[in-house]
Amino acid sequence: MSDYDIAFNEFIKKRGFFWQTADLYGGLAGFYDYGHLGTLIKRNWETIWIDYFLNLGDNYYLIESSNILPEAVLKASGHVDHFTDVLVECSKCKETYRGDHLIEEKIELKEELTDLDVIFKYIQDLKIVCDKCGGTLRKPMDFNMMFPLIVGSTGKDKGYLRPETAQGAYLNFYREFNALRRKIPMGLAIIGKAFRNEISPRQGFFRVREFTQAELQIFHDPKNFNELFDFKSVKDYKMNVCLVKDRVEGEFKKISCKELLKITGLPEFYIYHMAKIQQFYFDILQIPKEKFRFYEKSDKERAFYNQIHFDLEVNFQQLKGFKEVGGLHYRGDYDLSCHQKGSSKKLSIKIDDGRKILLNVLELSFGVDRNVLALLDSNFYIEDGRNILRIPPYLAPYHVGIFPLQKKDNLDEKAKEIYRTLRKKFRAFYDEVGSIGKRYARLDEIGVPYCITVDYETLDKKNPDFDTVTIRFRDSKEQIRVNVGDLIDWLENKIKLNL
Amino acid sequence: MSDYDIAFNEFIKKRGFFWQTADLYGGLAGFYDYGHLGTLIKRNWETIWIDYFLNLGDNYYLIESSNILPEAVLKASGHVDHFTDVLVECSKCKETYRGDHLIEEKIELKEELTDLDVIFKYIQDLKIVCDKCGGTLRKPMDFNMMFPLIVGSTGKDKGYLRPETAQGAYLNFYREFNALRRKIPMGLAIIGKAFRNEISPRQGFFRVREFTQAELQIFHDPKNFNELFDFKSVKDYKMNVCLVKDRVEGEFKKISCKELLKITGLPEFYIYHMAKIQQFYFDILQIPKEKFRFYEKSDKERAFYNQIHFDLEVNFQQLKGFKEVGGLHYRGDYDLSCHQKGSSKKLSIKIDDGRKILLNVLELSFGVDRNVLALLDSNFYIEDGRNILRIPPYLAPYHVGIFPLQKKDNLDEKAKEIYRTLRKKFRAFYDEVGSIGKRYARLDEIGVPYCITVDYETLDKKNPDFDTVTIRFRDSKEQIRVNVGDLIDWLENKIKLNL
Repeated sequence: MSDYDIAFNEFIKKRGFFWQTADLYGGLAGFYDYGHLGTLIKRNWETIWIDYFLNLGDNYYLIESSNILPEAVLKASGHVDHFTDVLVECSKCKETYRGDHLIEEKIELKEELTDLDVIFKYIQDLKIVCDKCGGTLRKPMDFNMMFPLIVGSTGKDKGYLRPETAQGAYLNFYREFNALRRKIPMGLAIIGKAFRNEISPRQGFFRVREFTQAELQIFHDPKNFNELFDFKSVKDYKMNVCLVKDRVEGEFKKISCKELLKITGLPEFYIYHMAKIQQFYFDILQIPKEKFRFYEKSDKERAFYNQIHFDLEVNFQQLKGFKEVGGLHYRGDYDLSCHQKGSSKKLSIKIDDGRKILLNVLELSFGVDRNVLALLDSNFYIEDGRNILRIPPYLAPYHVGIFPLQKKDNLDEKAKEIYRTLRKKFRAFYDEVGSIGKRYARLDEIGVPYCITVDYETLDKKNPDFDTVTIRFRDSKEQIRVNVGDLIDWLENKIKLNL
Repeated sequence: MSDYDIAFNEFIKKRGFFWQTADLYGGLAGFYDYGHLGTLIKRNWETIWIDYFLNLGDNYYLIESSNILPEAVLKASGHVDHFTDVLVECSKCKETYRGDHLIEEKIELKEELTDLDVIFKYIQDLKIVCDKCGGTLRKPMDFNMMFPLIVGSTGKDKGYLRPETAQGAYLNFYREFNALRRKIPMGLAIIGKAFRNEISPRQGFFRVREFTQAELQIFHDPKNFNELFDFKSVKDYKMNVCLVKDRVEGEFKKISCKELLKITGLPEFYIYHMAKIQQFYFDILQIPKEKFRFYEKSDKERAFYNQIHFDLEVNFQQLKGFKEVGGLHYRGDYDLSCHQKGSSKKLSIKIDDGRKILLNVLELSFGVDRNVLALLDSNFYIEDGRNILRIPPYLAPYHVGIFPLQKKDNLDEKAKEIYRTLRKKFRAFYDEVGSIGKRYARLDEIGVPYCITVDYETLDKKNPDFDTVTIRFRDSKEQIRVNVGDLIDWLENKIKLNL
């Protein structure tokens, strides 16, 4: 591990962002808990995601659905039969591996591996053996990634933890469609947990078995969907795209939406949403522009329900490369058609021009935890041996720190008074322990963009700086004086996010 | 079912509050999904809960922890051995029942039943048979209420879905304590899902297998905990309390905190927190004062980890009586002591006066879904055959509705313009479909406290009411005119919640 990696990992654990679940007990592979700072950043991300994506349409709503689903649902959706990874077992010690990962660790591949025979041939050709005991590896097999469970006490009702939040939106589609007075397009978003029993998660916080998804399903009539979005408004907007045909590790091309349309023939609505997503990463999350790209998936790589599929990828310093943080999936009428068949209930609807159709689905899918990691990873700096988190103010765990210069002479009283006022409107943090320098350093490290200090001038009626405080900037280290009475307006102006 | 019940259930489903999970597939007993309106109210409740309870101390934080926990954790906590309900099986058709509920349906009991033999004796004495087939019921047995599952592909790692969020706080206590610079008392709150495999859930949305809890664990030194809270400030505050010794179905006494202290000898900090909780129900949630009480649990009824236990109960119109919506639990050092033993890691800490102690825990626990139901149940009225939800403005799904009087003559343009401005600050809903009366009725039903109408006067420069709109009040039906420019301030003032 590099010095950066060591410092980053230490920072994450020590300051309270996240750590392995039940680490008291040695931990549970693939499970993480968020500490107080991680929770704050995650919630900020979620709030901003909701504000941004639910505003892409005027009939988009958030709903909440169960983590446990009955077997019939996941049978109909195809997950019981097809939601598998390739499992390879050691014939000697029974250790298990994910087949494609075994190969990828040895050689660079142009495409993800899925075929069992191909993977087995690679294992034999590359002479891959058990990493733990050196034993021979068995023939690969499919392993279903869902967690099964029994509901109730009779043993008759089988269920699964949902592998994606999306199913909740499909199951609730018809009820919501009626509750929302039958308007289309209709967007149903869910932020919630999803569960995948990964065979052998080895990438720490990045590949986990329990994670939070933020997904928006846009139910629409394919016939007029293009017309609903102003493609012209994005036609010259340049996208970072890596198409299947020009895949090079870690690279992408900058292509305008108009060009992308010409080269790929993708639907306008699809490219329009790509642009909106990239704007979210560039303008809202402020991920550096060279660190974000769309990565096209090939026919073989796409999930079984997707017709068009680009991953959203961020280049992680810590993970040494571009990694998936979400996806834009055109699922057609796959989902409603599955559930119509599985439930024997009509899900087609009659639309204005008299046609009876199954609506199609465009899915915007985000891994929340990976996005939180991306925020931390891309904003973490070490300067003069000190950690600093340069996260945008509206995403920061706290907007503002408030300190008394010293814990005496009424400085602390005044600072607490300011703190109590500010905390009603902002995420504010009061600190009176240690030197001012140490307090700045502690808040720089966790990304607090502004620190207010109450000093002797603040209280000295004869001083020209009476009733003003010092505001010190995290990034520039600049300090200015601001009237106490102006603090709310000043801060509001600094931390606001115009969507 | 009464007319009220029928109307309430219809209202809940039709307008999009909640419905059974996978009802397309016939549903899954004990599981519910929230529609868009239910989700809005639930999120409002959660936000207000966080604001209120995390402000009870200056070192209280929200964290987020895994739903799946390794077996060792729940073995140590006692849940693997003791978290059971009484299962009674039909010897003929294998239908299962919850033993205590079987008895409670037949006779009124002074205390909850837990003893297997006692329950079996009741079954025999009362000649209770299988409700489904008339078969003889078997001897009761303990049924563990957790959902077990296997983590990973080797089959070796057993886990459970967490039966309470609380364990996450205990597991993270030591890391957070250090991240938060070793201050006590320290509060760790979690809002998240919990899972209990209820034997035979029959109370609809009220008794479910997957639910959201909001729990605050306050880790403290019992020696000085009383001193940290201003008991004097609540000493004359009257509490609604039903003590074990004077239990009467549906009743409670009004007792001042001071009297309660004298009668019960409960610790001051415990009574102080009872008062804060009741204030939350009275002042914030505005549950009618006669509909909330604290219900003391007896030694036998208390969960195995609680030393002091009062349930928070709300009188539900729909459920015909007082039902549990939360609890205040003094858990002593049970939890940290269990996990210290289970993990073989020291969890005791050295405090200022040199003592090395295990901190004690006071737990404030709330069932979020039951609280959402309580809000709907206690605010739902039928007046002149129309539904109306009299929910407090800050809890309402939308703060304000905006209508054009008609969909022409620029009225709609102006209304949309106002809508776009207001939605940046408020939960706003635009509606132009149907008569004004119908639009009022639709928004009254879902609890929107204020509706703004743009009419011809708004646009008529010669009219004295130029540039004003009508605001109509949900509860009084009163209408006033307000300047368009004053709308933000007017609304902000009306919907604000002073905590």
